[in-house]
Amino acid sequence: MTRVRVHNFGVSLDGYGAGAGQSLEAPFGHADGRLMQWFMGTSTFRAMQGAPGGSAGVDEAFASTWATGIGAEIMGRNKFGPERGPWSDTEWRGWWGENPPFHTPVFVLTHYPRPPFEMEGGTTFHFIDATPAEALALASEAAGDLDVRIGGGVATVRQFLAADLIDHLHLVVSPIILGRGENLWQGLEGIESRYDIEAVSSPSGVTHLTFTRKPLSP
Amino acid sequence: MTRVRVHNFGVSLDGYGAGAGQSLEAPFGHADGRLMQWFMGTSTFRAMQGAPGGSAGVDEAFASTWATGIGAEIMGRNKFGPERGPWSDTEWRGWWGENPPFHTPVFVLTHYPRPPFEMEGGTTFHFIDATPAEALALASEAAGDLDVRIGGGVATVRQFLAADLIDHLHLVVSPIILGRGENLWQGLEGIESRYDIEAVSSPSGVTHLTFTRKPLSP
Repeated sequence: MTRVRVHNFGVSLDGYGAGAGQSLEAPFGHADGRLMQWFMGTSTFRAMQGAPGGSAGVDEAFASTWATGIGAEIMGRNKFGPERGPWSDTEWRGWWGENPPFHTPVFVLTHYPRPPFEMEGGTTFHFIDATPAEALALASEAAGDLDVRIGGGVATVRQFLAADLIDHLHLVVSPIILGRGENLWQGLEGIESRYDIEAVSSPSGVTHLTFTRKPLSP
Repeated sequence: MTRVRVHNFGVSLDGYGAGAGQSLEAPFGHADGRLMQWFMGTSTFRAMQGAPGGSAGVDEAFASTWATGIGAEIMGRNKFGPERGPWSDTEWRGWWGENPPFHTPVFVLTHYPRPPFEMEGGTTFHFIDATPAEALALASEAAGDLDVRIGGGVATVRQFLAADLIDHLHLVVSPIILGRGENLWQGLEGIESRYDIEAVSSPSGVTHLTFTRKPLSP
């Protein structure tokens, strides 16, 4: 049974998953790299960069579960690139270089569909204009027996949560107050009732939270 | 040197310290008792109720520091009682019965000053119309060599944080999404830069955060 998973999703103490003023130079807006700073020291992140070493503690334990058993990803267009509106820069092939770290089909949600293209290492980007449920049907089929990851950004994760389509959510709360930007929790009052929740703090200063969907009542 | 301290201050994952719809029957509004549920099982809370027993773990360790070394409290009027505007019910003497748990002078911030009165056990309520800095000057004098506690509610803690008057802040984040009410973080972007911050999660599901003001640069 395919599960729908979110991993390594950073939020501030006031619930922002990205700051204000997102751009090519600042994908997280005025949050800069602060929401993902805990991730930079992990072995998982270093391996993505082709670098050796990295931490092996609780941050790494969570980070490393990111790719295991994933057969497809769904991401919002703003995660794929900084351009908005109709595509003018078709040379843009994502933030991740020629060999992106996904190695699966990736479904990019956009109101402007365009032909798919394949990258090195097994990542193929598809561009679809679809509701969360429609996108999930496509991604589940592509994933086969494996799980589907919702890769972000903030609005995409929020829409999937609102549609009650997330089985497993891993959040990482950094002790910063961003004050503005994209708030993950907007419109999600009371969703904790659907989940079993654990929290564990890390020596790095962040707190990892896991939301696991409760079994349906018989 | 008097320190200014906040203890056992509960917030939701989206930063609300109280829900919407506060009233006599629901002092935390639609949050009900959820933000303070972690506190109910502690020995500290049970002792306040005159009951034996209670937990002795990390929740109790934090809860028990509440009263140590405190010489005065400042609270907002909404913590003192549910009435707004000019006082009509002068029979109301707080939520806490004839022997409140403070045992020190308590300064209640209100635009409607009235004469002080003394309760059993050493608690005296004073009613003052003052800025945070003015209230702190009065409370510090009353506290002598001891510390001043800012007792809440949300708006009061937020105002003292905005005025940079808090030395030690203990927050308790519950994994719930309230969605509406009084948000602690409103207008406080970037205040983490003034503090050394630690986080520790508890088996009860909450995460304790301590903000300790950084030493001033020489």
